[in-house]
Amino acid sequence: MEYIARHIGPTQDEDQQMLDALGYESLDALVDAAIPAGIVKDGPFELPAPLTEYEAQERLRELAAKNTVLKAFYGQGFNSTLTPPVIRRGVVEDAGWYTAYTPYQPEISQGRLEALLNFQTLVQDLTGLDIANASLLDEASAAAEAVALMSRVVKKGRRVLLDARLHPQVINVAAERARAFDLEVEVLDLTEGIVGEDIVGAVIAYPGTEGDIADPRGVIEAIHERGGLVCVDADILALTLIESPGELGADIAIGTTQRLGVPLFYGGPHAAYMAVQDKLRRQLPGRLVGVSKDAEGYPAYRLALQTREQHIRREKATSNICTAQALLAVTASMYAVYHGPAGLKAIAETIHSYATRFAASLEAAGKTVRHAEFFDTVVVEGAEGAVEKLAQAGYLVRDLGDAVSVNFGEDCDEEDLAALLEGFGVAEAVAEGANRIPAGLARKTEYLTHEVFNTVNSETQMMRYIRKLGDKDLALDRTMIPLGSCTMKLNPTAGVETITWPGFANVHPFTPDEYTAGWRELIEELASWLVEITGYDAVSMQPNSGATGELAGLLAIRQYHLSRGDEARDICIIPASAHGTNAASAMMANLRVVVVKTADDGSIDLADLDEKIAKHADKIAAIMITYPSTHGVYEDTVREVCEKIHAVGGQVYIDGANMNALTGIARPGDFGGDVSHLNLHKTFTIPHGGGGPGVGPIGVGKHLIPFLPSNPNTEPNTSGDTAAHGVPVAGTYYGSAGVMQIPWAYIAMSGAEGLRSATAHAVLTANYVAHELNDAFPVLYTGDNGLVGHECILDLRDITAQSGVTAADVAKRLVDYGFHAPTLAFPVAGTLMVEPTESEDLGELNRFIEAMRSIRAEIQEIMDGQVEYEKSVIHNAPYTAHSVVRDEWPYEFTREQAAYPVASLVHGKYFPPVRRIDEAYGDRNLICACPPPEAFDIEPEVVEEIDITVTEENSK
Amino acid sequence: MEYIARHIGPTQDEDQQMLDALGYESLDALVDAAIPAGIVKDGPFELPAPLTEYEAQERLRELAAKNTVLKAFYGQGFNSTLTPPVIRRGVVEDAGWYTAYTPYQPEISQGRLEALLNFQTLVQDLTGLDIANASLLDEASAAAEAVALMSRVVKKGRRVLLDARLHPQVINVAAERARAFDLEVEVLDLTEGIVGEDIVGAVIAYPGTEGDIADPRGVIEAIHERGGLVCVDADILALTLIESPGELGADIAIGTTQRLGVPLFYGGPHAAYMAVQDKLRRQLPGRLVGVSKDAEGYPAYRLALQTREQHIRREKATSNICTAQALLAVTASMYAVYHGPAGLKAIAETIHSYATRFAASLEAAGKTVRHAEFFDTVVVEGAEGAVEKLAQAGYLVRDLGDAVSVNFGEDCDEEDLAALLEGFGVAEAVAEGANRIPAGLARKTEYLTHEVFNTVNSETQMMRYIRKLGDKDLALDRTMIPLGSCTMKLNPTAGVETITWPGFANVHPFTPDEYTAGWRELIEELASWLVEITGYDAVSMQPNSGATGELAGLLAIRQYHLSRGDEARDICIIPASAHGTNAASAMMANLRVVVVKTADDGSIDLADLDEKIAKHADKIAAIMITYPSTHGVYEDTVREVCEKIHAVGGQVYIDGANMNALTGIARPGDFGGDVSHLNLHKTFTIPHGGGGPGVGPIGVGKHLIPFLPSNPNTEPNTSGDTAAHGVPVAGTYYGSAGVMQIPWAYIAMSGAEGLRSATAHAVLTANYVAHELNDAFPVLYTGDNGLVGHECILDLRDITAQSGVTAADVAKRLVDYGFHAPTLAFPVAGTLMVEPTESEDLGELNRFIEAMRSIRAEIQEIMDGQVEYEKSVIHNAPYTAHSVVRDEWPYEFTREQAAYPVASLVHGKYFPPVRRIDEAYGDRNLICACPPPEAFDIEPEVVEEIDITVTEENSK
Repeated sequence: MEYIARHIGPTQDEDQQMLDALGYESLDALVDAAIPAGIVKDGPFELPAPLTEYEAQERLRELAAKNTVLKAFYGQGFNSTLTPPVIRRGVVEDAGWYTAYTPYQPEISQGRLEALLNFQTLVQDLTGLDIANASLLDEASAAAEAVALMSRVVKKGRRVLLDARLHPQVINVAAERARAFDLEVEVLDLTEGIVGEDIVGAVIAYPGTEGDIADPRGVIEAIHERGGLVCVDADILALTLIESPGELGADIAIGTTQRLGVPLFYGGPHAAYMAVQDKLRRQLPGRLVGVSKDAEGYPAYRLALQTREQHIRREKATSNICTAQALLAVTASMYAVYHGPAGLKAIAETIHSYATRFAASLEAAGKTVRHAEFFDTVVVEGAEGAVEKLAQAGYLVRDLGDAVSVNFGEDCDEEDLAALLEGFGVAEAVAEGANRIPAGLARKTEYLTHEVFNTVNSETQMMRYIRKLGDKDLALDRTMIPLGSCTMKLNPTAGVETITWPGFANVHPFTPDEYTAGWRELIEELASWLVEITGYDAVSMQPNSGATGELAGLLAIRQYHLSRGDEARDICIIPASAHGTNAASAMMANLRVVVVKTADDGSIDLADLDEKIAKHADKIAAIMITYPSTHGVYEDTVREVCEKIHAVGGQVYIDGANMNALTGIARPGDFGGDVSHLNLHKTFTIPHGGGGPGVGPIGVGKHLIPFLPSNPNTEPNTSGDTAAHGVPVAGTYYGSAGVMQIPWAYIAMSGAEGLRSATAHAVLTANYVAHELNDAFPVLYTGDNGLVGHECILDLRDITAQSGVTAADVAKRLVDYGFHAPTLAFPVAGTLMVEPTESEDLGELNRFIEAMRSIRAEIQEIMDGQVEYEKSVIHNAPYTAHSVVRDEWPYEFTREQAAYPVASLVHGKYFPPVRRIDEAYGDRNLICACPPPEAFDIEPEVVEEIDITVTEENSK
Repeated sequence: MEYIARHIGPTQDEDQQMLDALGYESLDALVDAAIPAGIVKDGPFELPAPLTEYEAQERLRELAAKNTVLKAFYGQGFNSTLTPPVIRRGVVEDAGWYTAYTPYQPEISQGRLEALLNFQTLVQDLTGLDIANASLLDEASAAAEAVALMSRVVKKGRRVLLDARLHPQVINVAAERARAFDLEVEVLDLTEGIVGEDIVGAVIAYPGTEGDIADPRGVIEAIHERGGLVCVDADILALTLIESPGELGADIAIGTTQRLGVPLFYGGPHAAYMAVQDKLRRQLPGRLVGVSKDAEGYPAYRLALQTREQHIRREKATSNICTAQALLAVTASMYAVYHGPAGLKAIAETIHSYATRFAASLEAAGKTVRHAEFFDTVVVEGAEGAVEKLAQAGYLVRDLGDAVSVNFGEDCDEEDLAALLEGFGVAEAVAEGANRIPAGLARKTEYLTHEVFNTVNSETQMMRYIRKLGDKDLALDRTMIPLGSCTMKLNPTAGVETITWPGFANVHPFTPDEYTAGWRELIEELASWLVEITGYDAVSMQPNSGATGELAGLLAIRQYHLSRGDEARDICIIPASAHGTNAASAMMANLRVVVVKTADDGSIDLADLDEKIAKHADKIAAIMITYPSTHGVYEDTVREVCEKIHAVGGQVYIDGANMNALTGIARPGDFGGDVSHLNLHKTFTIPHGGGGPGVGPIGVGKHLIPFLPSNPNTEPNTSGDTAAHGVPVAGTYYGSAGVMQIPWAYIAMSGAEGLRSATAHAVLTANYVAHELNDAFPVLYTGDNGLVGHECILDLRDITAQSGVTAADVAKRLVDYGFHAPTLAFPVAGTLMVEPTESEDLGELNRFIEAMRSIRAEIQEIMDGQVEYEKSVIHNAPYTAHSVVRDEWPYEFTREQAAYPVASLVHGKYFPPVRRIDEAYGDRNLICACPPPEAFDIEPEVVEEIDITVTEENSK
């Protein structure tokens, strides 16, 4: 049996039932009708014949075996760490956690919101700053985000100072991002003081890439005196022993939390962090979890300050970050919960003790250690041959040219210490080394004092805590997540299983190529398949999210124009209906956004486009379009649009968000695209992880190949050479390599025919749902043939006008039926966008249709004047178990109507842990750390009116 | 940090709080007071220093790497199969499934009961028989159980005929078990017909061990004519292509379901099956899931016909089977649900096609294939050197001496076929082979027609079905399971994780030793540690359950006596309070049971013992005692009891059920035992799996070593030699090897001090619970010092007399508080036995104490006359979510009192999926296959009185 039949939800018989409802003879006939013939690829896709799950895993096992896993004592931002098995199994390997969506619907996301709040509290405590976000993509891009933040705040400066002691990849990524904003970048040793004015800010390494710890207070003061801001790039674990950036005066802290239990993953994914002083909170990029309250007054978590996000007021976008690294942030937070403050400190002290003994042993043997003060990294002068010798012994250390750097991690033991010393020709380890933490920087402030970090001590408690939180949430393992523009399809276990295999997961990203043949073969093979699937000439695997892919693509376009002397091209045309991320990415690439209107039928308004082109012709860098459009329709004018832009010298960026409507059938590279990113998460089955990881590789035409992201791990460019070039966007060449087995397996198990079939079924299920719900909720846009693409927009505006019931009400009410809501208010306010994907079977589709029709009947009662909107079952949704059991029942409808509106729920009912959440309250009273336990000990009260200014959109 | 601190629930601070409550200065002081000084081991335990989780896994990885995994084409009862990743992750690797207890409390076990019912339906359908049980331990012991069953029914026969075509291990185990019953065993080729009368029955191979398929109808008829019964040992997968045993006239069918997705596991665990004609249903050994209804009339599952089990009327015990292979049966059932009838048939046909092509290719090349008709196994005559040649190529085939047998499994591909042929010197595979299924036996009857096998088609559906069922149940991942005499402690993930590592899981049990160095080193090391822990001289790892350990130990004792010419010793003395399994095992070992009374304080009545010894002296084979006793108390007379038995030439069997009160402190081998079994499941942290797997190794004194279980995989003994000897009890030498990494890791990570600490904490938590609950529910037995051991019995008899509330009512009511009930009605009717184990922290203990006190207050209302018993919240417990939400509310108490009796439930509430189950209804209307979907579509009604003749006890 071919695997694709497992991936696709409907059986052939179910296909036929749906086709009958739609009036098509066959799936091919439907696809032919839906997809414009003009864009369909000529001839077959050249992909290998599909493998079974077993064959795919066998092949992956062979590839893993081709890697030589050297035990990593390399450092440079990636440290050996131990994932507690209970967390690996309970979080990283648990479908309840990894198949969840970004927690936009907070009522069904309280578990992961709590875990992310723990993450924020962890970061705030350790950095000593007021507010932290729920993760960023990696340390290098976090530094870039910090530079962007500083430049938004310090408007009059031009100079950005980057500590030469930062890791090279951090310097490279941050410097290029700064240059994209036309800032002046200086890379210098900040421990030596600064000169001059006109400073935006500085990023200081703490400790430095060579492990040395310098007191940053002098530089911080000097920058502040000049009106600049200071970001400290701090090692999160070192902060248990050295004083926090906040205490030292920093405005911002960034770093990675990889070493808190997240495997090396050959570079990613890991969760980076950013924390800021309170004054900067509205500038913080990325997601921020905050505490609000629900309709009964119980504390409840939600994403706070959503208006900061790019999708609301896109012209004010502060960052294009959408998907971050939720699953990895959860992992790191659980690690902190499990170890607690004493445990984390003990781990740091053990690491420090190995490092000090290593240094002392070397010194006792007459060797020279470069830095006197350090936490976990020791640089040994000279030491020729040590790198090779240690590699042969199974160890990876860092070659600095004139010295060798050894970084200690949590997995070091006595045997390792002896072997490492042996590598440097030292026969014996001393029993103890003197403390090497600078006395003036020894940490005095407390951290992780909250109860959650001090009560989960045993494995049993940890297991139950993970389960308790996971159970609060609705993920794909319990229900469809019909999110338009998000493609929440199956994540095949055969692929997902392999990410924690040691042969993959324990490889350090800077391991020399000779030891990583398996990884590179896998990634290059995957890239070659993506070339075939997209019709481009090359693919870069570096972008570690969809938004980063957009940025990388736009930067490539920008560099392309620069290489041709076309400096004036700084306009990016974006349709009104585009994902907000598009505009935000354009701004991050320092492009000006010009919006082109949408016509009444949802397509791009060609007349307006012509007008904009005529007006800006020579300044047009690019157009960003999504195909099929975010209105859920295949526009047959797409070639025309591309040609118009090309005609004036612009480039075409085709957003890959909707590739699930094209894969295996049509290729953006064929119908006019110069560059596209793909969401390997979601569309190519990497699980969404509750808001990350993401992988957003970009495909480009031949002319853009020179401008694909370059390797970030090179000597920083301090020469001032500004020739057009590829710009790195992540800290490692392959970005989030560690999850690329998943799309590899998906494509390998699908083959060309399987991918085509998946796309065809995505179109079939969307059209079936649209057809079945059209009476209840009119489908807003269809093509000329009356068909939609792989998603459909249900228009509630008229219903809202007649009844008061909003799309948000429907979204909340769906929770009571056991569903995750469709995409709300995007791309059109007052609508819901439904994308069932190919993975949902007819039974689940019908369950959803039944729920929606039942809700429509509830609305009808309001329309008919039988029920007041404010008193309706729908307006007060959702209902917790306790709320429908409690003796007091203040409503006119019955408990049963509230909780069991359809009979099938009797045999399986999900209750949300909280009632509807007051969105505005949380923003007015911003709290982004764990609330005290007493906060939950309240007398519930039913608040009749709460503010749920819903601001949701899909993420990338 | 030492791992043991993670395993043990309470922190040091919590220890102190509990010690303060108990009035002890220190944990040592408590242990000294609780445990008689006379039994404490002199000097330290010689065990290695504890490893961390990381170190233990590293070592296990080394051991796995020491195995050379040959791809198995060996057969002989163990076949290559593919576990669908979604099932591996969702069931085998999911704590919700593997930490569950045997489903004695059906209201919180509906998920696994449904999965087991699917298993029964699968077996019934494929075997064509009327009723199947919920699994047996392995194929070989299932054959032994079948022989035992036949001899119970056919009372006048003496001869048991075993087909020489059965696998050798099946013959050996079944033959020895038959001989233990003094039956006459004949091993002969049953295809050649039978002669003579006096026949109990026969076991026929279908197909034979060499793969040949013979029509069994003639033999079946001949046996039936002589009044005997016929058991067919059938390959479950072959039954999709060949006619079912039931259709052919068999009375019984047995076999293994390993090849339905369960890894080879170096021999076990796997689920065996047994199905019988309806007339034999009350003779069926093991667990049987049946359909009953709950208090509202909904269909609900439960263990049926529990009176068949050994613990109720032990003198009528038909088997000593308690723990079976629930987790593996669930796995096999999910495999069948996922593949469905068409999928299973397709798998079988593919396998058959490889086998036929292999045979045809050989024949085309002039080789001789021994059997013309086969399903999956081809025997090649001669073929010298092929076995070695193929081993070098990575393949394992079976050496028959004068021929080589090749067995095809689900993982075979074209490459394998070519390599196998190459091993026989054949260069090319033919494209097709003729069908080799005997035309007269081609299957015509339908199977797996029930909806559940025909609706779960996609991976998404499978993932959700697994989660849906799992969520219905309460397991250790959500709550403590305070089961007296069961030790439901933490199952450390570090150990559990390793069982699915391919280096362990994919090893065929009959792989030559040279390729299994890692496995054998692991098992022998574990055995040596168990020798040290028990104080015996040797340990056999073969018994694959606690009950099998008991049987093996008693058989060793019996053989020992025989070896000394002491044939008359056939009495086994068993205290009245013993586990029912003890008596059942004695009966399976053909010993007569003499019961010795229990004194008022719960200890063995020494006067009665003296009397029984005096009366039976020369006939006493053994005494079986449990220590500390099943009354939860360390008796200080244990040495004396042992001495009395030894004095008359008897042997002492000390049941290891309560080793969690001794481990690391005292050793049964030191204080008088000659033999003990250990529960490596539970006590040594193998998860209970919802009712198996179990591992029950036995330790013995030096004199019993010759009588330890022998290797079952030897040429069957047909010589009639009856010298005393070791008797195999499982189909492979190491029994359930595949999970032995778990106790290995537990001991390796604990060390001697850790084990001692775990035991001390088990005593601490039990005494704390006893102390805190004594006012509410009097503790029945304590030692002279007022202390209990690691468990305590709460006496409800007076409460029942005063209020009508039974211990069963309390058990059911605990569900509403989110707890699994303690052990009910064992060892004393009308009581609950509580064993918290060392893994529960003080918070969880207090949550339980709060629940029990709250229930006591509910009872008080009845005692005070405020509430009628029949109308009480407790008598009507538990409450489903729907029952407390439904508009109709027929009770005098409120919904909130029913579902939220304590405030903490508001933040996390488990609702059982059914109301209280009518136990008797299910037995009166026995249905043991999946009910039709319509059965669930009912109008609920609240039945006021239902019969819950609870018959629960702990399992082994």
